[in-house]
Amino acid sequence: MPILVMKFGGTSVATLDKIKSAAKRVSREVANGYDVIVVVSAMSGETNKLVGFVNDTSQMYDAREYDAIVSSGENVTAGLMALTLQEMNIPARSWQGWQVPLKTNSSHASARIEEIPSDNIMEKFADGMKVAVVAGFQGISPEGRITTLGRGGSDTTAVAFAAAFEAERCDIYTDVDGVYTTDPRITNKARKMDKVSFEEMLEMASLGAKVLQTRSVELAMRYNVKLRVLSSFEEYDPNAGTLICAEEDIVESNVVAGVTASRDEAKMTLSSVADRPGIAAAIYGPLAEAGVNVDMIIQNISEDGRTDMTFSCPTDQVSRAEQAINAAHERGDFNFAGLISDTDASKISLVGIGMRSQSGVAAKMFKVLSDEGINIKVIATSEIKISVLIARKYTELAVQALHDAFELEKA
Amino acid sequence: MPILVMKFGGTSVATLDKIKSAAKRVSREVANGYDVIVVVSAMSGETNKLVGFVNDTSQMYDAREYDAIVSSGENVTAGLMALTLQEMNIPARSWQGWQVPLKTNSSHASARIEEIPSDNIMEKFADGMKVAVVAGFQGISPEGRITTLGRGGSDTTAVAFAAAFEAERCDIYTDVDGVYTTDPRITNKARKMDKVSFEEMLEMASLGAKVLQTRSVELAMRYNVKLRVLSSFEEYDPNAGTLICAEEDIVESNVVAGVTASRDEAKMTLSSVADRPGIAAAIYGPLAEAGVNVDMIIQNISEDGRTDMTFSCPTDQVSRAEQAINAAHERGDFNFAGLISDTDASKISLVGIGMRSQSGVAAKMFKVLSDEGINIKVIATSEIKISVLIARKYTELAVQALHDAFELEKA
Repeated sequence: MPILVMKFGGTSVATLDKIKSAAKRVSREVANGYDVIVVVSAMSGETNKLVGFVNDTSQMYDAREYDAIVSSGENVTAGLMALTLQEMNIPARSWQGWQVPLKTNSSHASARIEEIPSDNIMEKFADGMKVAVVAGFQGISPEGRITTLGRGGSDTTAVAFAAAFEAERCDIYTDVDGVYTTDPRITNKARKMDKVSFEEMLEMASLGAKVLQTRSVELAMRYNVKLRVLSSFEEYDPNAGTLICAEEDIVESNVVAGVTASRDEAKMTLSSVADRPGIAAAIYGPLAEAGVNVDMIIQNISEDGRTDMTFSCPTDQVSRAEQAINAAHERGDFNFAGLISDTDASKISLVGIGMRSQSGVAAKMFKVLSDEGINIKVIATSEIKISVLIARKYTELAVQALHDAFELEKA
Repeated sequence: MPILVMKFGGTSVATLDKIKSAAKRVSREVANGYDVIVVVSAMSGETNKLVGFVNDTSQMYDAREYDAIVSSGENVTAGLMALTLQEMNIPARSWQGWQVPLKTNSSHASARIEEIPSDNIMEKFADGMKVAVVAGFQGISPEGRITTLGRGGSDTTAVAFAAAFEAERCDIYTDVDGVYTTDPRITNKARKMDKVSFEEMLEMASLGAKVLQTRSVELAMRYNVKLRVLSSFEEYDPNAGTLICAEEDIVESNVVAGVTASRDEAKMTLSSVADRPGIAAAIYGPLAEAGVNVDMIIQNISEDGRTDMTFSCPTDQVSRAEQAINAAHERGDFNFAGLISDTDASKISLVGIGMRSQSGVAAKMFKVLSDEGINIKVIATSEIKISVLIARKYTELAVQALHDAFELEKA
């Protein structure tokens, strides 16, 4: 039998009724001829409640105990899902992480999956079981302690199972119906994509399209797992949602797949820095140590041995960045004339694998923004992405204008 | 180091503050020089919530999934207790049932403990760990599934650990401060006992003194585990509570240890039953099949080949008993003249190991009741117990009169 992995997030299993409606989706896939591995999150709110208990008990908590505590919500939904399927006369049973066993390293609270032996569950499938319900987010360390996988851990669990069991596909049921060309709250022309490549999804996930955790997409890309994101609150439709797959599985695609916006970006400029070998390390080393997530970096052309250095980071890390730079300055690590922090910025990005082979996308982007009177503060590009920082008030205008200009509403 | 087992019930770990106050009790015993095994229940209300989820999902549920679900509450408190102890700088860690492993048979929802290997935890004690926190109520079956031990399971877990680790004592912290000579709500002369024998406690537990589950007392008796019941809501006192121990550890004791009352008892009489070999089996077999818990059984002297048969059972099982008897009658299994159900009864019992060697207790009991004008409906005796059924309205009067007459307020 072909194997299908179906993952239901916290909002999809928030109540017994929602578990029942998720189970109905599972039953359809069983009827379609699949052996199904269901991965469940905790009922929404449960994990936060448990994390709250831990934080209220201890500030510097033992992550091994944290994991033992916060993993318990998934065990409840796994059992309830198995019972619900049995009520529908579908042979099903639950597995907790240690029962599979889903083996991880010992990095508690953010463990990496090392191995998922498939023999145990495959044997049960051979015996007539139709659905294996797996508690997401959790595993077991070499020391026999419970581990958790960190944020988005259940998505990662689902993709890892799909890889280990060579599943035909991994369906991620969530509260949105797919991946859009841009945020539908910004323009009603935003179009749900039928397909998007792993690379594009990775760029879009890290840029603020919060549908899937980056880590699960990386894992899917590495093992070539076909991922589908779809809503657990819509009518059943075998072609629903967005398929995230390898580039070669997408026959024809737009040059630009989507446009993303990320608010709360700040631009920081160090003016007239003495340019010398090692200056970049001298500046960005202390920033990394201070926990500042530097995103874009621009270094202007050096004149008379001095240069301007510009970088972007999240708005709420600006004061931390200022402290780190001033401290380095006082230590004499480097010197500069001025430090200007501009906390009024949004990052607008165009993402598309077609940009690799087609030139002129950047030029067109700059022209569209210029026509709207939007000044560009910083530009950064990668193989399949162009990002610009602009004043925050132009966020919607820029996204709408770019969406129109690149005709993203058309498939 | 000597080992002490401390068990905290649901009300003793109901909130983070209560967990903290329980942890303080643990820290005192660590300071007293013990290596401590703490057994915890789920926060009060949690297990009922989970059982509710299961019942709402499925009427004829798979007990293996039930166990996987309802055991999760204990995992949370075990982790929180370990964290709380660590915050107090006491080396501690949690163990879930499968991690110990606490091995049980496969009777899900009412599993029997088969083995508790001690090497794993003893090794950690040798390494400097001071407290092993164990999730109560749960174990692992030979098939690797999670099992639970049924009602009072955490008491049973605690006693089993005390036996396996040859603990000096097993302290059961609960919401009452010990075992009383009778229900303090019936008479304020009720006295907390310092010591009571296993045998007496067993009779009192099964007769309605709901302090400890019968099963944990049986286990303690079999392995001679010193059990102490005490309150988790009172000031620390090394001699608090009631010690439940072997008869030989009690130097001097009253002939009668306590008097118990059980309301909701019914007396049923079959009059003029044809007396023949096998008649008792013909009557009580169908009752057992119908799930009627027959308690006392009295057969009058046979006259002219006919006899009266009287038995008692819980009030809410009377109609079930009537149906079973009438059905057997119609099948011709036996015949009788009449069936009288008296649902207005209480069972009053005197319990005491001293009754083995001292006669006259029964006679004195009957005289005390007679002096109060209380009619005795049924009498039953065992080696260390005398029970009578009386009209329910006399319950308090009988208990108070007997408590006074046998001077139970005096140690």
